[in-house]
Amino acid sequence: MNQIRDLVERLLKGEVVAAAKLITMTENANSGENEEIIRLISPYLGKAYVIGITGAPGVGKSTLTDKLVKFLRKKNKKIGIIAVDPTSPFSGGAILGDRIRLQQLATDEDVFIRSMASRGHLGGISDATADTIKILDAFGCDYIFVETVGVGQSEIEIVKNVDTTILVLIPGMGDEIQAIKAGIMEIADIFVVNKADKEGVERTILEIEMLQNLAEKKDYLAPIVKVIARENIGIDELWRKIEAHKKYLIDNGKFHSNRKTRLELELKQAVHNKLLKHSKKIVEMHENLSDTLDKIYAGKTDIYSVANSITEKLLK
Amino acid sequence: MNQIRDLVERLLKGEVVAAAKLITMTENANSGENEEIIRLISPYLGKAYVIGITGAPGVGKSTLTDKLVKFLRKKNKKIGIIAVDPTSPFSGGAILGDRIRLQQLATDEDVFIRSMASRGHLGGISDATADTIKILDAFGCDYIFVETVGVGQSEIEIVKNVDTTILVLIPGMGDEIQAIKAGIMEIADIFVVNKADKEGVERTILEIEMLQNLAEKKDYLAPIVKVIARENIGIDELWRKIEAHKKYLIDNGKFHSNRKTRLELELKQAVHNKLLKHSKKIVEMHENLSDTLDKIYAGKTDIYSVANSITEKLLK
Repeated sequence: MNQIRDLVERLLKGEVVAAAKLITMTENANSGENEEIIRLISPYLGKAYVIGITGAPGVGKSTLTDKLVKFLRKKNKKIGIIAVDPTSPFSGGAILGDRIRLQQLATDEDVFIRSMASRGHLGGISDATADTIKILDAFGCDYIFVETVGVGQSEIEIVKNVDTTILVLIPGMGDEIQAIKAGIMEIADIFVVNKADKEGVERTILEIEMLQNLAEKKDYLAPIVKVIARENIGIDELWRKIEAHKKYLIDNGKFHSNRKTRLELELKQAVHNKLLKHSKKIVEMHENLSDTLDKIYAGKTDIYSVANSITEKLLK
Repeated sequence: MNQIRDLVERLLKGEVVAAAKLITMTENANSGENEEIIRLISPYLGKAYVIGITGAPGVGKSTLTDKLVKFLRKKNKKIGIIAVDPTSPFSGGAILGDRIRLQQLATDEDVFIRSMASRGHLGGISDATADTIKILDAFGCDYIFVETVGVGQSEIEIVKNVDTTILVLIPGMGDEIQAIKAGIMEIADIFVVNKADKEGVERTILEIEMLQNLAEKKDYLAPIVKVIARENIGIDELWRKIEAHKKYLIDNGKFHSNRKTRLELELKQAVHNKLLKHSKKIVEMHENLSDTLDKIYAGKTDIYSVANSITEKLLK
């Protein structure tokens, strides 16, 4: 644990190698090292503003992130980028391709880039993202971008970790807007229509507005920003909308309350993970486990009845 | 619950509609209906032999299943097929395409086909597969095929539910053999090299053998069967290997012990699922939750320390 203490000290001084090592350590959650790391950095958290960028493959999320980061680097901000691909353990290639586009950034000491691939279960990648955000926060990042590939349930889990969520669309994906409206439309704080020089951009905006009209009325209406990320067009406007959303959160007391709600979710997940570890042990320690399994096998009882009695005994 | 009782009675008489309805009910695990269903059918389980068919997309798993099923239909066996796609909630199309190839089977009263798509978390699809196997077992199937798309962690979870696992490969996928060797090579009871009229078949066999040589020595060596599924070549030989594996399991006392081990895993998963439901409630009922969250937010404590104290109190 001395090694962790040492690494955390170096992290707080802004040492890149220490940040990278600590993130790698949290990725192996079973070691328990992540708990020690989070414990040590917890007094230094809450300074970074976290922005989620999500959307279907091919809409230009990486390019958009790239341009936003360059925009912020001119203001001398320190940046973290977390690129998450929760869908496939074999998609390292695709992420790598995206990363190469970010390579010019990678030589910049004040831009920290990290790719995270799936570890086979949903909670895992969401937990790991939450831990990585904390480490980059303690590292001194002013802004942390969390870029997710795809628009499934995993992305919804991941963007729970951010302050502002940007949903990126492109013209001519009407059907896909329909497909993703469940859940993900709800979480978008800003819509970006990228590749806005392409045909169909006004129709895409109309479709978003129609879905917004169908949705429950809220006191905040997510703005729609037209962008041509590749040509750096619309980036400053997008940044203004991000700042406006942050201001909205602060003015309405939601900035802190959202973060506290997130902490509650994280706490539930942490308790869940601990119980998961224990649940195996609990079953193994069950008196007469072998006899009980024999009874289930013989059809004299069933798994759910046994699970119920074990759980009830535990929680009474 | 009367409806469930009625459906289960009709299931046990072999009524197709009842089987389909009950499977749909178990898919919505939150309702608790799955528990009632499994409870009612538990005295009637254990007769079906379960065969897993796994491998990368495009290796011909559906065609292979198709031919094996036709082979068994000549012996007048009743068959269940479960096609699982754990990777994508949007891949209904792909599954549908495969299913169309099985359509000639679908008109056969004694072949029950079910597609299952992802429900966003790994445990979910594995649990649902286990429940569906049980329903098809009680339905009177002699053989149940579980066909999975892909070769990731999810497939490894899913094939934990089967008696014999067939890993399907095709010539010329050397790199992919490397990629999948972790984990999935371990679980293969039979290797099928499909499309064995293509160039490179001997090299593929050699590569499998090399990986087998590298692996830990076991008393059972998975045979490698050359098949051209489309032309129905090698299917009888493959069937002999499946029966040989079954005989091996029985002769070595592993048939029952493997199934009991699976029951233990299922029990752990069921306990885990119940604790998951409770974990949220446990956190919400935590005394001074709001104060505790404030303390975490202020950096005076951290999520893992609080999670530890909650869990320890619970399990003491």
